[in-house]
Amino acid sequence: MERIRCELLKNKIMSAEKAADLIMNNCLVGTSGFTPAGYPKAVPIALAKRADKGDKIQIDLFTGASVGHELDGLLSEKGIIRRRYPYQTNNNLRNSINNGIVKYNDMHLSNSAQYLKYGFLGKLDFAIIEAVAITEDGGIVPSTSVGNSNVIVECADKVIVEINVSQPAELEGIHDIYAINKPPFTEHIPIKNASDKIGTTYIPCDPEKIAAIVVTDIEDTTNPIAPIDETSEKMAENLISFLKSEVKCGRLPKNLLPLQSGVGSVANAVLGGLRYSEFENLDFYSEVFQDSALDLLESGKLRIASAASLTISPERIKYFLNNISKYKDKIILRPQEISNNPEIIRRLGVISINTAIEVDIYGNVNSTHIMGNKMMNGIGGSGDFARNAYISIFTTPSTALKGKISSVVPFVSHVDHSEHDVMVIVTENGVADLRGISPRERAELIIDNCAHNDYKEMLRDYYSRASQDAKGAHTPHLLSEAFSWHERYIQTGTMI
Amino acid sequence: MERIRCELLKNKIMSAEKAADLIMNNCLVGTSGFTPAGYPKAVPIALAKRADKGDKIQIDLFTGASVGHELDGLLSEKGIIRRRYPYQTNNNLRNSINNGIVKYNDMHLSNSAQYLKYGFLGKLDFAIIEAVAITEDGGIVPSTSVGNSNVIVECADKVIVEINVSQPAELEGIHDIYAINKPPFTEHIPIKNASDKIGTTYIPCDPEKIAAIVVTDIEDTTNPIAPIDETSEKMAENLISFLKSEVKCGRLPKNLLPLQSGVGSVANAVLGGLRYSEFENLDFYSEVFQDSALDLLESGKLRIASAASLTISPERIKYFLNNISKYKDKIILRPQEISNNPEIIRRLGVISINTAIEVDIYGNVNSTHIMGNKMMNGIGGSGDFARNAYISIFTTPSTALKGKISSVVPFVSHVDHSEHDVMVIVTENGVADLRGISPRERAELIIDNCAHNDYKEMLRDYYSRASQDAKGAHTPHLLSEAFSWHERYIQTGTMI
Ligand SMILES: CC(C)(COP(=O)(O)OP(=O)(O)OC[C@H]1O[C@@H](n2cnc3c(N)ncnc32)[C@H](O)[C@@H]1OP(=O)(O)O)[C@@H](O)C(=O)NCCC(=O)NCCS
Ligand SMILES: CC(C)(COP(=O)(O)OP(=O)(O)OC[C@H]1O[C@@H](n2cnc3c(N)ncnc32)[C@H](O)[C@@H]1OP(=O)(O)O)[C@@H](O)C(=O)NCCC(=O)NCCS
Repeated sequence: MERIRCELLKNKIMSAEKAADLIMNNCLVGTSGFTPAGYPKAVPIALAKRADKGDKIQIDLFTGASVGHELDGLLSEKGIIRRRYPYQTNNNLRNSINNGIVKYNDMHLSNSAQYLKYGFLGKLDFAIIEAVAITEDGGIVPSTSVGNSNVIVECADKVIVEINVSQPAELEGIHDIYAINKPPFTEHIPIKNASDKIGTTYIPCDPEKIAAIVVTDIEDTTNPIAPIDETSEKMAENLISFLKSEVKCGRLPKNLLPLQSGVGSVANAVLGGLRYSEFENLDFYSEVFQDSALDLLESGKLRIASAASLTISPERIKYFLNNISKYKDKIILRPQEISNNPEIIRRLGVISINTAIEVDIYGNVNSTHIMGNKMMNGIGGSGDFARNAYISIFTTPSTALKGKISSVVPFVSHVDHSEHDVMVIVTENGVADLRGISPRERAELIIDNCAHNDYKEMLRDYYSRASQDAKGAHTPHLLSEAFSWHERYIQTGTMI
Repeated sequence: MERIRCELLKNKIMSAEKAADLIMNNCLVGTSGFTPAGYPKAVPIALAKRADKGDKIQIDLFTGASVGHELDGLLSEKGIIRRRYPYQTNNNLRNSINNGIVKYNDMHLSNSAQYLKYGFLGKLDFAIIEAVAITEDGGIVPSTSVGNSNVIVECADKVIVEINVSQPAELEGIHDIYAINKPPFTEHIPIKNASDKIGTTYIPCDPEKIAAIVVTDIEDTTNPIAPIDETSEKMAENLISFLKSEVKCGRLPKNLLPLQSGVGSVANAVLGGLRYSEFENLDFYSEVFQDSALDLLESGKLRIASAASLTISPERIKYFLNNISKYKDKIILRPQEISNNPEIIRRLGVISINTAIEVDIYGNVNSTHIMGNKMMNGIGGSGDFARNAYISIFTTPSTALKGKISSVVPFVSHVDHSEHDVMVIVTENGVADLRGISPRERAELIIDNCAHNDYKEMLRDYYSRASQDAKGAHTPHLLSEAFSWHERYIQTGTMI
């Protein structure tokens, strides 16, 4: 097993079942994995089998971000997950969360490592980390994501490593691992450009802490990405013309500033549009590296891509990984404590582009809750980027569910990003540039430029009655009607 | 005039009236001033007189934070203010904002300088800066606040300096002015301790830009602060016992980490409680330095206090300023771009303590809007600190208006700080530690520990019906009733 270069550790190789047996009931487990890439698979599957055999086992699960079916899906199905932090996108798990079975705390991704390090979540019993190799000194070389893996290894009592031979050994060298001390001993993070490398290519780990090494070849199950449709193309066009005008007004350099792009199909499609733009020599400083970022890289538009994970769709992941050497010097994978760090995002002046579920007429954004009640995924890193961006942009199609839902509503049913964190809203209909204007001005602009034609008059009606009724209101609302659109949808299946 | 040490500039001395005549209609004016300290007074008064004489003059006004009556009060009364950024606390102005006469955009205070520097608010025509002196090279020595003054001077076409001889010349040396470059040329900010000084004691300024110097002796009108009552004392006790238990659990050092405390009477009272605690050798890294911080300094509890302004109550300001030399080596006044910078707040591990207007059962906080409609003050720096704090704490009395309003509601009528930014809620009844727990757990804890007895059963009733009704809800809400408490108050004058 040439991937395990530390002689001392070769006797720790064991089956996934044996490794899974180490995990006790009621413990806190941290695993690798970020927007399902680079998460452990063999040990979780073996853990699920323990439950099948009648073992009573429950864990609290902490990861980088979302992980694949073998972990979030299977373990929630078997009732093994009791608590879950800081992000997820799995259907089974989502149902358990919404039914109150799994206690979920979704966090700003940049804060999640701190919660662990500062002891806010209690003692971390186990780390399970997918790796492509172990170095001579026991250093762990991650696979397709870094996420919180370095911090998890640092904090865990015991570490289980899954060496995944389906992940190319050539990934070694793509990672840049850097540890941040706890206050009062924290230093500045010495990154000045998206391309700066400041750390090691492996996660330092005391070999004594490594309790088991499992060798596996189960492939990542990444999420498929929806094809780019006309709506997304228009959103991309609107975004690009906004960026162009910023350059023209001297508010952005010609090659822009480092770009961040959110997760999901909409974000992927919108970023993809840049491929056909005039912009060149772009930098990418983001948390996920999706298909469209790969397109930009291949088209020569990107100078460098910095991210916390490689989130390539199932159709393209094989080709990508087989040719990783070709891309390696243009991609850096960092801990999410670094990729999402306010310090760096501000310093670089990142342009953030994230997707909203719904926005309201005053510019507040809901990224997480369906009809104010059901959790979709979680806030993820959207807050880290939006709050600290040079320009923070939110995109959304103006309607959802074939037009039955307006994505522009009087009052968002949950607030993830307040009016203070939202500078620009882009839909397929247009752009609302909210910088420096008052709530009343924002309402008119968002309705005029972003809302769907089918809902414009209804929105204007709400706003104008609110402005008249509420004598003396900075942000005119009719509280008795604020959520009436959502109520109508719940009762009738449409907001119209 | 020995306060003007630059020979070249002595011929720029003129009357306030002459200086005010320089300001054109329709221009953007930036002034010094932060939570009313160190704002210009003579020129604004003269500007108001121009309006009295029938001059048509309107300006957009950008400051550090809130400023006193002579500026916000008088100019809004005369209809001179058209737009206002980034924060205010003046009654006249508040009314004009809520009536839609003044267009107000309240901002995260740490972002406001960026808005100016990046050109998001247009060209800055004039700076009006209160100072205690001008150095040999034309450097401007600010008075009792720094706020955005350095950035305003940097960006303005023309600068008017108000030398205020009522402010002691001994203030020179208390300021630490440091400029941050725009991306892509931004460097890290070299502060590692609250006590680090990294800049100059004056605001560098090209003497060519100085268009006028006005000498005045009008004193700052600071805000009175309410006496500490029983409710605040109990909040302080609850906060202190929470902090003690964090130390005991090893999650905080014995002398804590640098403290931030919000504006207003509640924040002042709560911080004041620390004077009688066992904590020693405390650091203070905040934006306002209010009376209670002065008490802590005088009692020897504080090693250092870093802030953006000295906001001492009218009763104590005279004594304080007359004795400023005694305090000077323990106080640092910084630009708000530094005092409120996410980079520094995270690095130092600041414990933030801010005041909420209302909180909801899931831990979302409203700091700005009364009944979802009327603007109170603005978000100020609360978001800068809460988002980046080591531990972010919000305090509020459990009721307002003599019990007629519950400060714990089903759904806050405006969200300034989402559940992701709120770790701990403190009322006079107790503490809710929300770290790592799910929304359903948060609801039970907040109701049990923080709500007022008169409202507990009503809150439990809402929550339990929401949990039952909403089949499958991470955050159970009855949207049709979410704002019913606010509506009831508006209709009947009480939430009961
Ligand atoms: C907002 C988010 C869910 C959009 O995801 P997406 O894949 O681009 O968009 P989709 O259009 O497929 O929407 C996802 C789902 O939300 C539903 N949805 C979207 N808008 C809706 C609305 N206004 N009301 C109700 N449901 C809505 C869609 O119908 C779809 O549901 P389905 O999966 O049951 O079909 C996703 O970007 C997200 O989770 N964001 C939060 C985290 C984040 O921003 N991370 C990035 C930081 S780098
Ligand atoms: C929240 C805030 C208004 C509290 O101010 P305060 O002086 O400590 O508290 P008070 O109890 O005097 O409340 C201020 C007003 O709000 C009203 N109020 C408080 N809670 C209320 C509630 N739940 N519903 C309605 N009104 C409420 C009070 O009645 C009072 O009104 P009044 O001035 O007409 O008498 C103030 O802290 C603030 O503006 N915060 C936001 C900015 C910030 O946090 N900056 C600090 C960053 S360092």
